[in-house]
Amino acid sequence: MTRLLIIGGSDAGISAALRARELNLTVEPTIVMADHFPNFSICGLPFFISGEVQDWRNLAHRSAEEISQQGIQVWMNHWAEAIDPIQKTVTVKDPNGQQHILHYDKLILGTGGTSVLPPLPGLNLPGVYPLRWMTDSFAVQKHVTERSPQHALIIGAGYIGLEMADALSLRGLEVTLIQRSQSILKTVDASISQLVQDELQRRGVEVMTGVSVSQIELKGDRLLVSDAKGFQRVTDLVIVAVGVNPSTQLAQTAGVQTGVRGAIQVNRRMETNIPDIYAAGDCVETYHRILQHNTYLPLGTTAHKQGRIAGENAVGGDREFEGSLGTQVVKVFDVAAARTGLHDVDAMAAGFNPLTVETEAWDHKVYYPGAHKLRIRVTGDRTSGRLLGAQIAGHYHGEVAKRIDVFATALFHGMTVDAMSDLDLSYTPPLGSPWDAIQIAAQGWSRQFSEFSKVSHSIS
Amino acid sequence: MTRLLIIGGSDAGISAALRARELNLTVEPTIVMADHFPNFSICGLPFFISGEVQDWRNLAHRSAEEISQQGIQVWMNHWAEAIDPIQKTVTVKDPNGQQHILHYDKLILGTGGTSVLPPLPGLNLPGVYPLRWMTDSFAVQKHVTERSPQHALIIGAGYIGLEMADALSLRGLEVTLIQRSQSILKTVDASISQLVQDELQRRGVEVMTGVSVSQIELKGDRLLVSDAKGFQRVTDLVIVAVGVNPSTQLAQTAGVQTGVRGAIQVNRRMETNIPDIYAAGDCVETYHRILQHNTYLPLGTTAHKQGRIAGENAVGGDREFEGSLGTQVVKVFDVAAARTGLHDVDAMAAGFNPLTVETEAWDHKVYYPGAHKLRIRVTGDRTSGRLLGAQIAGHYHGEVAKRIDVFATALFHGMTVDAMSDLDLSYTPPLGSPWDAIQIAAQGWSRQFSEFSKVSHSIS
Repeated sequence: MTRLLIIGGSDAGISAALRARELNLTVEPTIVMADHFPNFSICGLPFFISGEVQDWRNLAHRSAEEISQQGIQVWMNHWAEAIDPIQKTVTVKDPNGQQHILHYDKLILGTGGTSVLPPLPGLNLPGVYPLRWMTDSFAVQKHVTERSPQHALIIGAGYIGLEMADALSLRGLEVTLIQRSQSILKTVDASISQLVQDELQRRGVEVMTGVSVSQIELKGDRLLVSDAKGFQRVTDLVIVAVGVNPSTQLAQTAGVQTGVRGAIQVNRRMETNIPDIYAAGDCVETYHRILQHNTYLPLGTTAHKQGRIAGENAVGGDREFEGSLGTQVVKVFDVAAARTGLHDVDAMAAGFNPLTVETEAWDHKVYYPGAHKLRIRVTGDRTSGRLLGAQIAGHYHGEVAKRIDVFATALFHGMTVDAMSDLDLSYTPPLGSPWDAIQIAAQGWSRQFSEFSKVSHSIS
Repeated sequence: MTRLLIIGGSDAGISAALRARELNLTVEPTIVMADHFPNFSICGLPFFISGEVQDWRNLAHRSAEEISQQGIQVWMNHWAEAIDPIQKTVTVKDPNGQQHILHYDKLILGTGGTSVLPPLPGLNLPGVYPLRWMTDSFAVQKHVTERSPQHALIIGAGYIGLEMADALSLRGLEVTLIQRSQSILKTVDASISQLVQDELQRRGVEVMTGVSVSQIELKGDRLLVSDAKGFQRVTDLVIVAVGVNPSTQLAQTAGVQTGVRGAIQVNRRMETNIPDIYAAGDCVETYHRILQHNTYLPLGTTAHKQGRIAGENAVGGDREFEGSLGTQVVKVFDVAAARTGLHDVDAMAAGFNPLTVETEAWDHKVYYPGAHKLRIRVTGDRTSGRLLGAQIAGHYHGEVAKRIDVFATALFHGMTVDAMSDLDLSYTPPLGSPWDAIQIAAQGWSRQFSEFSKVSHSIS
């Protein structure tokens, strides 16, 4: 019987264990995890703090009982200290500080990531929180509930920062959102993120871009946040959400190689350089389907996929990770912003000859009540006509999330932008158009492409 | 200069004209049409009758002015009587009854379809209406507005019948919906249509299946509808919506061949058997991408695509219709039901070895408020593992329409069901799951498929 040991009880680790069991019931995977929140949806933390999720237990994708009923043994509150790849053992410290040696035939590392903490005086002050783990969210929740803060300041306007601006506004706080660069939500172009920024401001959130916080200090029983150019805000609560770094300390004890952004190097079978050690999730490099090389793109969806593949291969399967497209969506108040594939800038850096065209189109026939205008950016390659990426923003009821998924599915197959008009998509006036909004956007791109390439002139 | 003549001013005809102009500004297409409602969305008629669309003029995809500004000449209220394919002329009767001879170099037929009228005594009685053209909807609207009917009976529970049940309920009528077969909405399987039927009944619509109406007769100032087995309802208004037949009378004057269901035979370039005569839309056969032969599948989306291709080829282009998957969606009150590809029964008839598996999955993480359960049926081929079709029903805010479009895009590319787990789809807890509902359904199919094929046993 294969001894399958998995380090980490979040998305990648649990997916690996479930897949291994699904394929081979003689395997009884053991998961070692540092806290006691197995399979928790860390993407859900902002909605717990907002009050939309009342009971934090509901954030679990599965309960500990359900996992154990699947034939998976979970050692909670156990810290994996070291791996010996020759003896094929992992040294684990239990909650009482006692060490145990676990033997494995196959080992999967799903050690995840940690919040990036900028080198900033004052990060350790009370009232300053990162937001990565359940315990972080409990601390923020306790602060908001017990100390009734009036104002919160969020450093970082990525997904978590935006969701926290929404969440803390819902809790009745005034919110200032700080972004170092000139636009928020850097994963999309500025004209897409502008719709999110408009929504934030409409809901009373103060959005400050181009501000690089240089220190946090106590001011009476409040906090003073400032930058070097004169920005200052007095606040009661600071959330630091500037990104994630891979957790690879344990991997390094085994001599596992790291690469992009310090993440664990893996091939598309999710194998590391050490035999019988796999890795998946936020701790690893991610193969990008369009770029055709590894990047660092930590996402819950990717962690699930990579974990599933690691689990399959660890029990004798042979499956490759088909690659990430960086597909993402975020909902901020009533606006959803989504993306997949490459931006113009990324595409150019990767050697493509990109053209990006922005189109506005209704989510459904405008004569039917409740139509929402979507802003859609399509990036394609001028040389090949190939679709390279897409971005959409608009009301979240405008099926923004699944429209980006149609683009993602087209990208997966390497379609040209022009061929998107051949897709047989659904239509009824309350939910679409005879040419769906994404096809209208694709046709908008093709028209500009024709002007450049003069292809139209070859048709007499 | 190519003289491009188009018969029909609905989806196919207008799309053809627009595409021809887009590609070649020296062409000035002329459209001859029988009524004065160019480019009207006939899919929108139920929403005009419901009152959701206040002004019928809004049902136009484009106004007559917009069409003419595109350089397209529209002859409204002109009836095309005959085509002479040798002289390359069309005889047209103007509103005064005078005949004109129009010369063409290229001719595109977009003559559409007509309502199927069952051989039923009483169809001509006042208060009995088909619903196909603008004038039909004006007649129903006038009836409802001026005569304040209390009860309506709808014969046929397809898309139009269902939408009319919704529409007339919104107008305050009691509604009885009659379907000859044992389940409504025959384009989906019974367990999918059941969710629609539940919603209709919850909203007070009386749904009668297995009823084959045999006559309609006057009863005082009301109508009595009955079948041969004892079914009887007294009503004030009858809508007949049992399907559509291709309009091919004009085509036949030119010797154009017809095929499936009497529709005009076309190749994938939308050419008929007569040189320089193209045809598109509800009057033609439609190439099915999975079946790889022609069927009759009249849909607005398809008419737009076929018209665009006919227009492109008529001005010297070379584009083939990539085929229909029969992708459709309907919204009935708060429930959307959608489908793409083949059902189990169709797939079997086409020589596949189909397996259909039904799964229930949430549209987004259930911990976030407002989650809707979706019922998803996946049909795949046991021999090849290939995806053959999918059906979804659930609350229309559950992004049912665009989820079926992800399946449609996967089908377009001939994906296996298993490979759907490789798609990089978007996720945020308010709008999805790390494995989207469609991937959960695909995995549900794969698990059953493994049990049959014992593929799992080959993995040690």
